[in-house]
Amino acid sequence: MENNLTLKRRGFLVGSASALAAAGFGAPVPIAAAQEAKPLPDYVAWKNAGSLIVHSDKTLETKRGEIGAGIITPADRLYIRNNVNVPDDSIVADRDGWMVEFAGVKEPRSISVGELKTLGVETVAAVLQCSGNGRAYFEHKPSGTPWTVGAAGCVLWSGVPLKAVIEAMGGAVEGTRFVTGTGGEVIPEGLDPKDLIVERSVPAEALESIILAWEMNGAPVPLAHGGPLRMIVPGYTGVNNIKYVKKVALTENETDAKIQATRYRIYPVGGKASTSDPSVWKMEVKSWITSPLEVAKAGKVQVTGVAFGGFHAVSSVEVSADGGETWKKADFVGPDLGRYAWRPFVISLDLPAGRHTLVSRATDSEGKSQPREFEPNQSGYSHNGWLAHGVTVDVA
Amino acid sequence: MENNLTLKRRGFLVGSASALAAAGFGAPVPIAAAQEAKPLPDYVAWKNAGSLIVHSDKTLETKRGEIGAGIITPADRLYIRNNVNVPDDSIVADRDGWMVEFAGVKEPRSISVGELKTLGVETVAAVLQCSGNGRAYFEHKPSGTPWTVGAAGCVLWSGVPLKAVIEAMGGAVEGTRFVTGTGGEVIPEGLDPKDLIVERSVPAEALESIILAWEMNGAPVPLAHGGPLRMIVPGYTGVNNIKYVKKVALTENETDAKIQATRYRIYPVGGKASTSDPSVWKMEVKSWITSPLEVAKAGKVQVTGVAFGGFHAVSSVEVSADGGETWKKADFVGPDLGRYAWRPFVISLDLPAGRHTLVSRATDSEGKSQPREFEPNQSGYSHNGWLAHGVTVDVA
Repeated sequence: MENNLTLKRRGFLVGSASALAAAGFGAPVPIAAAQEAKPLPDYVAWKNAGSLIVHSDKTLETKRGEIGAGIITPADRLYIRNNVNVPDDSIVADRDGWMVEFAGVKEPRSISVGELKTLGVETVAAVLQCSGNGRAYFEHKPSGTPWTVGAAGCVLWSGVPLKAVIEAMGGAVEGTRFVTGTGGEVIPEGLDPKDLIVERSVPAEALESIILAWEMNGAPVPLAHGGPLRMIVPGYTGVNNIKYVKKVALTENETDAKIQATRYRIYPVGGKASTSDPSVWKMEVKSWITSPLEVAKAGKVQVTGVAFGGFHAVSSVEVSADGGETWKKADFVGPDLGRYAWRPFVISLDLPAGRHTLVSRATDSEGKSQPREFEPNQSGYSHNGWLAHGVTVDVA
Repeated sequence: MENNLTLKRRGFLVGSASALAAAGFGAPVPIAAAQEAKPLPDYVAWKNAGSLIVHSDKTLETKRGEIGAGIITPADRLYIRNNVNVPDDSIVADRDGWMVEFAGVKEPRSISVGELKTLGVETVAAVLQCSGNGRAYFEHKPSGTPWTVGAAGCVLWSGVPLKAVIEAMGGAVEGTRFVTGTGGEVIPEGLDPKDLIVERSVPAEALESIILAWEMNGAPVPLAHGGPLRMIVPGYTGVNNIKYVKKVALTENETDAKIQATRYRIYPVGGKASTSDPSVWKMEVKSWITSPLEVAKAGKVQVTGVAFGGFHAVSSVEVSADGGETWKKADFVGPDLGRYAWRPFVISLDLPAGRHTLVSRATDSEGKSQPREFEPNQSGYSHNGWLAHGVTVDVA
């Protein structure tokens, strides 16, 4: 019975995959956008233009083929997504002088980055991924940046564990249920700060792994990525990783800032957001292929990609060259940088001439695999369906 | 008896450390050189000038305080040491078209980087360290660049394992004892190529780990670091990691190129090199402190640094704030990237006001520790003595 169902579902998958491929789905959608080649905005003029798709001044995506096998995404290839304008670079003139206010602790006070550096240091490798990464693959065309796969990277963050800071301030107050971080963005005058402020709350359990980072990939965190100090919440989507963090509070309730209250929520297509809808917090297991992308030579082809578990570690990844009909286990490449990092993968396939739909499907340490399709949500968040993330390759 | 000896040696150590500190040894010697601030040479104009000491057009060192806790050294902070001028950047215009000749295999032929990419991919994190790193700490003042600690970095290399290439070419011929790599440097006309060619042989056992790398830290290997293709010999000093590699041969004998025959050999001060002197191959266990470097505020001070085992993994590192009289075990920071990588370390020390000589001493997985002093050799290679690598810090 189960076998029959499986077979039926498989039959459906293959047909569907072919149909989608014929319709252009599964192919790297915004290559056209890349070819428009908008120039890099000034504040990220130091980035590697050839590796990036410039969607707007505030949204830059790493091209799928520019993600290598080296695990860590170099700063100059890492995506950019800002909700508000980047602050003036005067805030990184004296990095150690940047002040952060702490609240919800027994001895609340403001503390400089210089003093934070005396409280300890830890390094964590973590995938940084925009909540909307994969939005381009939703068929209902949500508004917002049409990210494909490149609003994500794997980054080494170094800084002080938040736990150590809280301990130095006498511990948390009673009733703490959330960690609420506030970004140092400047809100234009005349506008309601609640509408624009980047202030997010994450469940207090994240306290175990949060780092206040002054270093990214072995160098001071660039302003564009949240320097002088960024609150890193490993396993949580990008928006929860507060840039230029100026306040960290242990709170009983979630912030009522718009970005928390009604934005970054998962609710049905056509619906309206409410605070009872799930917030975009923990990331789910995901993977995608990085090569080949369009054409390959018949014979032995190295199919490469990246896979991560999100909040849990990734444990395996499979690749299919026939749109999901048959699967083979791929090998991970290079050292394991820990549960929050991604792992490059490779599999050597013999591909005959013809058109092939290559897809990858990762499984996390809890046994959860990427779904074939991902149920749509109004704002197009958190897509990890394997079919849509595949690529169609012509082998000659 | 042994205890007495130990005590006597300790007495000597402390006295000696103080004397050296008073004489300025143990302090970061070439800070003066850094302050001259020579401009970056054109071919590395993309590097981060503030992180580097420019010794010459061919030798740039990472400042001690610019090595972070992020494990991987970003490309724009990584040291440069070239033996010959860097080739024209036309060689990276078509990276996949770069040809490499293979010899000493049953089916020898030339192969393009594009084809190498069809044979497999692996990523290894490895310390890249110039053979002369630490030369400034030899008292006999060897000729050559006076590197302190910064002719080293930890890098993620991605490429094809050499083993896979050899297998694709029918395997090694009989009698293979060395892997000999030849660099693609252009030798000026009228000069004897044997004098200048960068061609090095390493023992065939290195075959197990050699990678022909087209990617460094997740991006194509920069020309200045050996792109389009570099032969990476993990655990071996920098010179053995052949840039712009154009030939790889499995050979019965070492090459007779000068760089192998008489240069990069360990022989006594005042002596002359011969091919029977040990070649600078495998790296030894080593560590150094990266902060604080000159001054610190009395109280709790985070002492940080990096430690690596060289050819073997590093297993532990201790720190002393009294020039080696007493030691405390430091903690490693962040994920372990494998035996060839370095590990940042940290220890929180309570330092009262006064002058402190901070030293670190690492031990590898074979139980071998850094020596207090390192026996001098004519050319100033391979210094890993812990005393000279220490720093003198004024705490106020």
